[in-house]
Amino acid sequence: MLKGKHLIDLKEFSLDEIKEILDLSKEIMNNPEKYNNACKGKILATLFYEPSTRTRLSFEAAMIRLGGSVIGFSDPNASSVAKGESLEDTIRTISSYADIVVIRHFKEGASKLASQYSSIPVINAGDGSHLHPTQTLTDLLTIKSLKKDLSNHKIAICGDLKYGRTVHSLVDAIKRYENNKLIFVSPPELKIPEYIKRDLDPNSFKEISNLDEALKEVDILYMTRIQRERFRSEKEYFDLKDSYVLTESKLKYAKEDMIIMHPLPRVNEISPDIDKDKRSVYFEQVRFGMFARMALIIKLLGVKI
Amino acid sequence: MLKGKHLIDLKEFSLDEIKEILDLSKEIMNNPEKYNNACKGKILATLFYEPSTRTRLSFEAAMIRLGGSVIGFSDPNASSVAKGESLEDTIRTISSYADIVVIRHFKEGASKLASQYSSIPVINAGDGSHLHPTQTLTDLLTIKSLKKDLSNHKIAICGDLKYGRTVHSLVDAIKRYENNKLIFVSPPELKIPEYIKRDLDPNSFKEISNLDEALKEVDILYMTRIQRERFRSEKEYFDLKDSYVLTESKLKYAKEDMIIMHPLPRVNEISPDIDKDKRSVYFEQVRFGMFARMALIIKLLGVKI
Amino acid sequence: MLKGKHLIDLKEFSLDEIKEILDLSKEIMNNPEKYNNACKGKILATLFYEPSTRTRLSFEAAMIRLGGSVIGFSDPNASSVAKGESLEDTIRTISSYADIVVIRHFKEGASKLASQYSSIPVINAGDGSHLHPTQTLTDLLTIKSLKKDLSNHKIAICGDLKYGRTVHSLVDAIKRYENNKLIFVSPPELKIPEYIKRDLDPNSFKEISNLDEALKEVDILYMTRIQRERFRSEKEYFDLKDSYVLTESKLKYAKEDMIIMHPLPRVNEISPDIDKDKRSVYFEQVRFGMFARMALIIKLLGVKI
Repeated sequence: MLKGKHLIDLKEFSLDEIKEILDLSKEIMNNPEKYNNACKGKILATLFYEPSTRTRLSFEAAMIRLGGSVIGFSDPNASSVAKGESLEDTIRTISSYADIVVIRHFKEGASKLASQYSSIPVINAGDGSHLHPTQTLTDLLTIKSLKKDLSNHKIAICGDLKYGRTVHSLVDAIKRYENNKLIFVSPPELKIPEYIKRDLDPNSFKEISNLDEALKEVDILYMTRIQRERFRSEKEYFDLKDSYVLTESKLKYAKEDMIIMHPLPRVNEISPDIDKDKRSVYFEQVRFGMFARMALIIKLLGVKI
Repeated sequence: MLKGKHLIDLKEFSLDEIKEILDLSKEIMNNPEKYNNACKGKILATLFYEPSTRTRLSFEAAMIRLGGSVIGFSDPNASSVAKGESLEDTIRTISSYADIVVIRHFKEGASKLASQYSSIPVINAGDGSHLHPTQTLTDLLTIKSLKKDLSNHKIAICGDLKYGRTVHSLVDAIKRYENNKLIFVSPPELKIPEYIKRDLDPNSFKEISNLDEALKEVDILYMTRIQRERFRSEKEYFDLKDSYVLTESKLKYAKEDMIIMHPLPRVNEISPDIDKDKRSVYFEQVRFGMFARMALIIKLLGVKI
Repeated sequence: MLKGKHLIDLKEFSLDEIKEILDLSKEIMNNPEKYNNACKGKILATLFYEPSTRTRLSFEAAMIRLGGSVIGFSDPNASSVAKGESLEDTIRTISSYADIVVIRHFKEGASKLASQYSSIPVINAGDGSHLHPTQTLTDLLTIKSLKKDLSNHKIAICGDLKYGRTVHSLVDAIKRYENNKLIFVSPPELKIPEYIKRDLDPNSFKEISNLDEALKEVDILYMTRIQRERFRSEKEYFDLKDSYVLTESKLKYAKEDMIIMHPLPRVNEISPDIDKDKRSVYFEQVRFGMFARMALIIKLLGVKI
């Protein structure tokens, strides 16, 4: 029963619960009309203490497509509004107005704290560099829909693996499914953190520093952004950056049925030449994200269809 | 008949009109479903020239729960948008788009001015440090709902009584009901202004400077925030501040059926330990505020149910 | 067939297509209830990279009055949100969430670019100092409604004719109708650009520098704002400014059935004394703008009523 639960960390949901959400996502994709009024009369509050147009609009579109409505704030100024008020008090106030609330906050743990004072379900839409569970639901739905299953895949994850909260959440989730092999592709200074590797079966992953090596064998390529300022020196940046940019020529060696994912926004790590390649699914992924959020809202609200 | 009226200052509404709004508020609380579509197809415009997440979201939730929709702007940047345009022209434009409008403005008298050029009802959601009539409706609804009546109460109002527009509006309203006794509790430099006392029956109030004295005898304790910078000296602030902070130990002496109200946001003047005390009704008050605004919107629009 | 088209530049629409939109606008004005649910379940995205309360709220009210919903962002901060992301990627993301999108951007050509990557209709709500086609639809609807026809008029256009994108778009449109005579009224340094005159029949316009001369003979007076900083010197500004301010005394010489239009916001170029003169239609024009946008949305979405 997901009704009334919060989604702070996807780890707190069982595989069965995740399956419930993904199955409903697909059903909504197949019969969107059936869900047109699922949340009629319900209000979603979007509290974005840190701006995020993409995630916010995905939630808003999701709620509206379910027949519900949205209130909230969406920029850093609005948080200064609440100046002097604790997050605890804000969430108790919002609990009076809305039926479910999405929080994006610059502080790690903010959503967790909010959930302890909320009388309505809280969804974590990113807290600091910590977690982003609805992006992971999006990723799982994309993989399940396009690759049939969440098990038995070779997955390369490429880019900034040290700071990327999207990556950490995805690894945490994907390791719960059987027989997935992870290939971490990053420059040495942006390697996946030790504490994450510690929880992985040593036979289930390897670390390399060159994208080309991985491209031939993987079923899924998960690209992420590398920020220039994260390199130790400009020299290193210029030496390494091309290894982490996906171009048409590199793609020649990849499997025909590989899929290329990206949580977006991208900067230059995927060349626009590739956008039309049928393996590029990152814009489809955006759409999966909206449906995953629709399913999540329905489940947490416990709406009967 | 409230249809078509503006709410700029609650003084302009008769006691019968206020009763009409409070009665409808309660009816909506008892039968919310009945009002689900009361304002279907109607648009509320929220013009917030000064940020106020709390009040804005209360109005938005109110309109949405009536089946209506909301347009507007919500931060100071948006007001620079209208740069060079007079408030008169802005309100005439908005009158073309919306059916009812809520204005929060940093200038005293702004809502009044707007109402003179508006072809749709204008609600004052705070103009400078002047008035905030929907907070007062909220307070009246809270008292009437939880203490049965608006008459015959001993009410302590504590904190910054000099600058608090919430306090001034509440005193203006509560003195219109019979046999209420007010106890103003504040440091000397933040006493209730002379012009407000002048309009009160001298037997209906007293002024003290220590919260403890009042606690034993009152039916209603209305707390407000004291801002540190309003004290004459840091020394005075440190000497006095604890007198105006409500703690569990102080509360021991209070009546069992006293209610503790606060317009929120609070800073530290009510200790969080007290939140679970059944006498603490400030979060319930938030909810009353939404229902009071629902009733107000219905009445000013003249919607028939 | 307008279904699925973008509106970037009104030139790309045939006169028949424009007529279709204007006819539908009038029908909606006459029977608004009939269109209450025309866009039920549809989402309009408003991407305002540059603030514009007036235009944004007009679109939002239009969509809501058609039973649809709105998502989007409305201030410059929000565009920093999308920092590092190309407009192409943003529009592809938004295409997943919404059914139709309105873009206001500080760069000329931005809407055109967006339309090339969008799978949903794009409406240009102003790109730099370039175009503003929905203002022109508004102007055409106002003229057609109040002066019966779009042909055979004497039209004075007064103010800053050099930089005003509203003026350029209007001239481009009005010249496509028969036998209109244009009188351009401006200070020498703010004359209508050569490239626009080049495309006009030389017998169809004249240029003058004094508003009084034109007032007697015109059917339509289109006023625009002159910004002080656009004059070559303060002296010139003070010498000239009164020629471009419409006052009650000047209006004495005008025809009884002349109409006075203004795209708004105005600063001081129309004296408020005139607001109640029956010839002043600029606030009515605001309302026409909302209906023109309602019709446009219906046509581009291809909604059947």
